[in-house]
Amino acid sequence: MPGLEGRSGRRSGGGRRRGAKTTILDRQRPFGRIVNTFPPLNPMSPDQLGKVHDISMRILEEIGIEVMSEAARRHLKAAGAETDDASGIVRMDRVLVEELAAHAPERFTLTPWNPEKAVDIGGNVINFGMVSGPPNVHDAVRGRRPGNFADYQELMKLAQSFNVITMFGNQTLAPIDLPANTRHLDTYLANLTLTDKMFCGMSIGSGRVRDLMEMQAIARGLTVEDLAASPSAITNINVNSPRKLDKEMSDAATALAEMGQAVIVTPFTLMGAMTPVTLPAALAQQNAEALLTIALIQAVRPGAPVVYGCFTSNVDMRTGAPAFGTPENAWANLAGGQLARRYGLPYRTSSCNASNVADAQAVYETEMALWGAVMGHGNMIYHAAGWLEGGLVASYEKLVIDVEILQNMAAFLEPVDFSDAEFALDAIRETAPGGHFFAAAHTMDRFKTAFYEPLVSDWQNHENWELAGGRDASSRATEIWQQVLERYEPPPLDPGRREALEAYVARRKAEIGSGEP
Amino acid sequence: MPGLEGRSGRRSGGGRRRGAKTTILDRQRPFGRIVNTFPPLNPMSPDQLGKVHDISMRILEEIGIEVMSEAARRHLKAAGAETDDASGIVRMDRVLVEELAAHAPERFTLTPWNPEKAVDIGGNVINFGMVSGPPNVHDAVRGRRPGNFADYQELMKLAQSFNVITMFGNQTLAPIDLPANTRHLDTYLANLTLTDKMFCGMSIGSGRVRDLMEMQAIARGLTVEDLAASPSAITNINVNSPRKLDKEMSDAATALAEMGQAVIVTPFTLMGAMTPVTLPAALAQQNAEALLTIALIQAVRPGAPVVYGCFTSNVDMRTGAPAFGTPENAWANLAGGQLARRYGLPYRTSSCNASNVADAQAVYETEMALWGAVMGHGNMIYHAAGWLEGGLVASYEKLVIDVEILQNMAAFLEPVDFSDAEFALDAIRETAPGGHFFAAAHTMDRFKTAFYEPLVSDWQNHENWELAGGRDASSRATEIWQQVLERYEPPPLDPGRREALEAYVARRKAEIGSGEP
Repeated sequence: MPGLEGRSGRRSGGGRRRGAKTTILDRQRPFGRIVNTFPPLNPMSPDQLGKVHDISMRILEEIGIEVMSEAARRHLKAAGAETDDASGIVRMDRVLVEELAAHAPERFTLTPWNPEKAVDIGGNVINFGMVSGPPNVHDAVRGRRPGNFADYQELMKLAQSFNVITMFGNQTLAPIDLPANTRHLDTYLANLTLTDKMFCGMSIGSGRVRDLMEMQAIARGLTVEDLAASPSAITNINVNSPRKLDKEMSDAATALAEMGQAVIVTPFTLMGAMTPVTLPAALAQQNAEALLTIALIQAVRPGAPVVYGCFTSNVDMRTGAPAFGTPENAWANLAGGQLARRYGLPYRTSSCNASNVADAQAVYETEMALWGAVMGHGNMIYHAAGWLEGGLVASYEKLVIDVEILQNMAAFLEPVDFSDAEFALDAIRETAPGGHFFAAAHTMDRFKTAFYEPLVSDWQNHENWELAGGRDASSRATEIWQQVLERYEPPPLDPGRREALEAYVARRKAEIGSGEP
Repeated sequence: MPGLEGRSGRRSGGGRRRGAKTTILDRQRPFGRIVNTFPPLNPMSPDQLGKVHDISMRILEEIGIEVMSEAARRHLKAAGAETDDASGIVRMDRVLVEELAAHAPERFTLTPWNPEKAVDIGGNVINFGMVSGPPNVHDAVRGRRPGNFADYQELMKLAQSFNVITMFGNQTLAPIDLPANTRHLDTYLANLTLTDKMFCGMSIGSGRVRDLMEMQAIARGLTVEDLAASPSAITNINVNSPRKLDKEMSDAATALAEMGQAVIVTPFTLMGAMTPVTLPAALAQQNAEALLTIALIQAVRPGAPVVYGCFTSNVDMRTGAPAFGTPENAWANLAGGQLARRYGLPYRTSSCNASNVADAQAVYETEMALWGAVMGHGNMIYHAAGWLEGGLVASYEKLVIDVEILQNMAAFLEPVDFSDAEFALDAIRETAPGGHFFAAAHTMDRFKTAFYEPLVSDWQNHENWELAGGRDASSRATEIWQQVLERYEPPPLDPGRREALEAYVARRKAEIGSGEP
């Protein structure tokens, strides 16, 4: 892939490909594990954490969660829960919940067809994901428009091109021009042919995640059964907060769990609407909802990989509108990580915003959420690139700006070399008081890769910046996504596997017809 | 002051003044101590910290710093340093440096004429300061123009109005329409009559800081001698990195120290230019420069309040242009705090950016620097409001956006109440699965102050946002500063003291004439 091999940036080896024309992407970091070198920031005292745990267990023991799927209730009853088929309410003892949750692994690996793009989920590894699910799309050239498959494919090409994005959520854009019952097949095929990175499947019912497993197996040249030893399929399910687990969600989760594939469990907890207005209550409710669902998954298949999800933010109490990147959202992102670690589970969080445009608000909200997510040791940071309008639009310009933000964060997290030569005592000795270090040998040896080199930032002085057109970051982002799309080349999926995938999609479309998958 | 009494926002008491017309400022947090509830984030291991200390001591012992002032060299020689009058180079033994630095207090209080606006410097208290020093000014209505006294006064009115700004650096804008040798008198008078908050004086020579002490004493109804027991004067001096302490700077520092007033010592260390390109070298050089200057101040008056400053960022190695809010700058902001704590000193850092416009870049750079500054436990975070173009312009719109950013941060840092009632177990019990909490009694009791209420952010959906004019955050910021200026009222300085200040300024201007102050 031209334009993707090079790297530069702080504390990294250099090495652009000789002779190749340099592009904006020659400056990006290589694809690879992003490790959080800082300890997690725990916002709750041990006492406060204990209280959240205790209240969440009381919610499960005394109040219960409505589990709409009869099959899911059967699984939970068999494991020892108290179920009521009339109301659907399931109550669980705290010992049982913790016993079941303890089966889940602390860490696992997801492997796409290109094993070099495998991602670790857990520990201090961070994965940044694309925006997932918006019904609309916007860029500065073509304006705002409903989600469609052509734009979907462009967004996947962009996501493939930026190395700091290591995974995708489900449907970075809803392609509403495609039939709803088969569009998951089209998006899976696009993901598998336009990219070689991990992605989440669609979590509405079991059919769509079965298609996900089948297609991942075909792309890897394996059987679905083989995937149990090396998972390739994952989805995110939301609890319909407060206290309701929809059938479509638990069906998707259990179908994946049965085959040893991974599930992220994320209660949809906007404070003031779906939870009480207070952070302790929201965290306790989130924890109860997440742990009951994780217990269900472990009851289905002990040891199935799961991820503890937190989406706790608040609404604007004057209008009910969702808000993201608020102080409360940043705090919850930290606290969610502390809870996930309490149960030895990997952690999914997000970095969202509620702005209508890729402006200062979009960025300060994104940064608040992102710092909470990173310092809370999020292992999967969802919606980290391209999210705008509280999730109602996928933005090309915001995507590029977010890549810059994420690259800055990744560079910040890299360890600093403190070996003797890095102290440059000779250069300091040789440089006169009031002099400069531009010509020092120590500088000459390192200047090309000493510092993170930005993608979007413009550091020219005002005069030169004005002469160059006086463009702001959003305007420069437009030029960048245009350049990247021009240079995009698909990853080398084996042609036989590609044909097999196309055949699978054709067959499944015929089978599904106008019914449900 | 109408419009300043109210408050709302997360975890705070409510209470707008009854009957008063609400304004944008009714929503802001009250003036008060901002306390960092999180532990400091230490980026260096104890070994790495020890190495930085060791190398910085070797710089002082083996290489030395050029101290241009003969008087300063005399002070240092008397304290035990090895001085060379021909070169100006001063070398100091590490034991001597640490002994002298140990005299400095860990924490002190600065008191302006309104004692309610006193600020604590040290511990886990954060003070956010205005941009300091830019030669140009910009707003979206009047465009970019050279610094001038009319705009200076407007900026001070804005800074006075926003409670999250608790102090000002020296000259939030350079009023270059005023004579250079007496403009400090005009800006001090403006600061003391338009605001009642702490500000830094001008650090060029001793005359300007003597005027600062005299005028602060008059404004407080005290003598200059009285100030020793309750400091009101402070300045920031920069070391002319690498390894050069200019006479004007040390003269200002020693004149303040002699009277027990405070000095911030900030080496001007842009990596690649004024230090080697590596973080360990930059930190070691910064540490050597800061500690020698702090040792000088303690030699002049043991126990004089000082602040350890860090301004370590990097330059663009292709052009030499300064960069701020880079990953390296954020990392240095953390590391600077760890060094300050190593010597038991309060810590000054900054949150800057290098954008030419109040756009996405301006904000993501500012946020990177700010999070490093806050998590590094900066006690004085300089340039936190209104800085743009790498410090070459004071921006009205950026100032308003920064106030929103700082208010978000302050709300994020507030402790969360984990008492039983906050867990809302009854509300959770009473709300049906899939229902909502809008009408719960727990919500009704708290919704007005449950969440931080933003100043700039617009959370309307896309349709309503477009109907309301489709304005971005910068455009909304314009309306806000216009409103705030309209509503501004000066703080009630005693008329007699005001007259005395005016008389002092008139007398000093006559004395100074066309000479140096």
